[in-house]
Amino acid sequence: MKLYEALAEDVAGSIRQGLLKPGDRLLSVRQASAAHRVSPSTVFQAYYLLEARGLVHSRPRSGYYVNAAAVARAPEPELPSQPDGESRSVEVSDLVFQVLESSMARDVVPLGSAFVDPELFPLRQLGRALASTAVHLDPRSTVDDLTPGNAELRRQIALRYRLGGMQVGSDEIVVTNGALEALNLCIGAVTGPGDAVLVESPCFYATLQVLQRLRLRAIEVPTHPREGIDLAAMEAAIARHAPKACWLMTNFQNPLGASLSSERKRALVELLARHRIPLIEDDVYAELYFGHERPLPAKAFDREGLVMHCSSFSKSLAPGYRIGWVAPGRFAQQVARRKLTTTLNTSVPTQAALAKYLQHSGFDRHLRRLRKALATQQAQYLDAVARHFPSGTRVTRPAGGYFLWLELPPPADALVIQQRAAQLGISIAPGPMFSAGRSFGHCLRLNCGHRLDARTESALATLGRLARETA
Amino acid sequence: MKLYEALAEDVAGSIRQGLLKPGDRLLSVRQASAAHRVSPSTVFQAYYLLEARGLVHSRPRSGYYVNAAAVARAPEPELPSQPDGESRSVEVSDLVFQVLESSMARDVVPLGSAFVDPELFPLRQLGRALASTAVHLDPRSTVDDLTPGNAELRRQIALRYRLGGMQVGSDEIVVTNGALEALNLCIGAVTGPGDAVLVESPCFYATLQVLQRLRLRAIEVPTHPREGIDLAAMEAAIARHAPKACWLMTNFQNPLGASLSSERKRALVELLARHRIPLIEDDVYAELYFGHERPLPAKAFDREGLVMHCSSFSKSLAPGYRIGWVAPGRFAQQVARRKLTTTLNTSVPTQAALAKYLQHSGFDRHLRRLRKALATQQAQYLDAVARHFPSGTRVTRPAGGYFLWLELPPPADALVIQQRAAQLGISIAPGPMFSAGRSFGHCLRLNCGHRLDARTESALATLGRLARETA
Repeated sequence: MKLYEALAEDVAGSIRQGLLKPGDRLLSVRQASAAHRVSPSTVFQAYYLLEARGLVHSRPRSGYYVNAAAVARAPEPELPSQPDGESRSVEVSDLVFQVLESSMARDVVPLGSAFVDPELFPLRQLGRALASTAVHLDPRSTVDDLTPGNAELRRQIALRYRLGGMQVGSDEIVVTNGALEALNLCIGAVTGPGDAVLVESPCFYATLQVLQRLRLRAIEVPTHPREGIDLAAMEAAIARHAPKACWLMTNFQNPLGASLSSERKRALVELLARHRIPLIEDDVYAELYFGHERPLPAKAFDREGLVMHCSSFSKSLAPGYRIGWVAPGRFAQQVARRKLTTTLNTSVPTQAALAKYLQHSGFDRHLRRLRKALATQQAQYLDAVARHFPSGTRVTRPAGGYFLWLELPPPADALVIQQRAAQLGISIAPGPMFSAGRSFGHCLRLNCGHRLDARTESALATLGRLARETA
Repeated sequence: MKLYEALAEDVAGSIRQGLLKPGDRLLSVRQASAAHRVSPSTVFQAYYLLEARGLVHSRPRSGYYVNAAAVARAPEPELPSQPDGESRSVEVSDLVFQVLESSMARDVVPLGSAFVDPELFPLRQLGRALASTAVHLDPRSTVDDLTPGNAELRRQIALRYRLGGMQVGSDEIVVTNGALEALNLCIGAVTGPGDAVLVESPCFYATLQVLQRLRLRAIEVPTHPREGIDLAAMEAAIARHAPKACWLMTNFQNPLGASLSSERKRALVELLARHRIPLIEDDVYAELYFGHERPLPAKAFDREGLVMHCSSFSKSLAPGYRIGWVAPGRFAQQVARRKLTTTLNTSVPTQAALAKYLQHSGFDRHLRRLRKALATQQAQYLDAVARHFPSGTRVTRPAGGYFLWLELPPPADALVIQQRAAQLGISIAPGPMFSAGRSFGHCLRLNCGHRLDARTESALATLGRLARETA
């Protein structure tokens, strides 16, 4: 973030928190320059930016004043989803690929992307760790680091569980090619074609794609946009469909950003244990919390070994390195063996480099910076959504991660918006990607993992216009 | 290889080629020292080694003489396998894992291993390529190098196809986590549970494990230990079982070492094309040829896009890096999409490093050294098998790769030998691992990818003794 952007964000934060109220005058350029020890031109740039973002306006020969609408935020969605309760085969994969392929080009505004801006990661430091491990790689490690994986990396992962008070032995951990492989190994270990699986509504589209590929049936369970999956509804679905597995994101769920409280995680684990149903827990966003401490996974409450906890470094540290892991509880041997017959093992020098970085290179310092950047960006995007989208729009305010979920006023059609936006070089993730039943036609997911620059601001304005036109 | 070992190998080669015949006297130590420009003590060490290997004997105050039995080699197997022609579900995976897990410890003599000695690979040079690419990694490459993969790496792979006169566009190539992932993606793209697949008899155990996991049925086709799969038998199996795919190794097949001639590869491709059956071609050993040129894959004869050619750098260049690829013909989109829902993509810095190595670092020079080492080791192991195994043993002499396939005189039981050998710290791969019908109980596969040192020689002697005891 440049100096003037930091200053603008500082002022915007004061407005959001109510320290500056609508009608208040900002410090004069001279005062601000002295107070923040920056040049007058930096202050000018910051104030121009705030004006462009609709937070302040200037009065000739008087100064800058906070706008009346500056603190308006679109309301949050309040109602849980209402899927029809059926178990169904999944047919969403082609739609997902069409949307993703239309958003792959480098010059597309990546509001539909699943990735954070790669500039937010310490790729040079990781590169140095990779460089020093690669040149001195023990040739025998090409055999020793076979699945379940590099011993030091697994120890480092076990130590991070310990930071949260959890006892997960490094013996239980299997290193994978990202969390997606971990999730695939888990679902494959406990289901066969035709089995039914409990998922959230809406749920991450890749989950649905995996179910489709494996010919599994999806049972979409009502999910609250802030509080997560509805356990009473889940219990009813279990009684009706006898599912073979439950596949959830318990923290900062993609796409809603919902998190289960610790009490609800405990209740979830107990409910599933009573029915002997394995839980596949996708927990890739846990490190991206905005609050005071990392939320626990449901795994923390597991007494039966039925929770398979999947995560990775792709979202928190090392995008593109493809290092994930799973702590599969009682399914550890099955999961490791499935890996041995699918991808055999995970890149040996890459595993060693991650292990080295985790030992020495300040992962937590990086995480603090990353969380702060993401929290700031979320606030900026929420402001922009309020400025540009039609009234009646609702938007989530997740306590972590980098997605916003928008409910547009009906009859807005997210698939139409997506297609028109794609022609204008803007990607979004339309709601029906996240549902086996193709629900959420009036919803979309926005990525706020990239800086809100002028081009993105303009893209959000365009999306707001498209939302009005299709509504 | 140390100096004295090289000299010993030079003499052993002369014996094998008949330049030195049984009863011939070796050069005196003084003569040999002068002729080879090495010290007398190096010559002594070389002659001791040849004596220990049973190729020569010394006569007091006279010198060293070639043994009568020095050039004896066990005969090759001559008969194709005779599977029963049924299509059957596969239940071999537990056996395979038991055998592999008993041979994982670092101090086991790795005659059952699937890997070459990692010291034979240019890991330091690769490490330097990885170091320089990792430190300067373009953050955007973490998105750009998503599946199908790094553009420069795919170009380098396409260029290697061109060296063999083949036209495979870089657009067709999908980079994978090793060949095993490529093979999994291919078989998954063209089959569903219950379908039948043509395989060799014997065939690579990982193939059988994949079929078992995917609930596919195996049709084992008679296969000649030198000439490969029997096409007439394959045609009959097609008529009887209507298989959905054929999965073969056309060059230096694991475990037999058999290769199809170019004419037979062409006939194979035409036969399968007539029946619209996709061919999944596992070609990981092609670069390890001992002859004058790299054998073509069956893919070279494909006109219909039905051949999915899978290979990797794991056996030829970079074990542990997990970089493979597939050129999937008409199935390119399906294969890439399957990858996007299973492991998403392949490690970005690792892909970039391989691309850089292939551009600059003398892959072909390394391959020449590797081939020479493997050919030499094969000859040494063949000698040792002749010395130690009971008469009646037959052993293959593949023209590439690093496996020997032994037929022991019945009623030798390879599973019993394997268990006893494991207790003595020696691994082997018993025949029944390579067959859905658990045939080949009197056969075993030996890895000759590691130096034949005294410990290995002793392990082979032990195996020969166990073969006698169980016969």
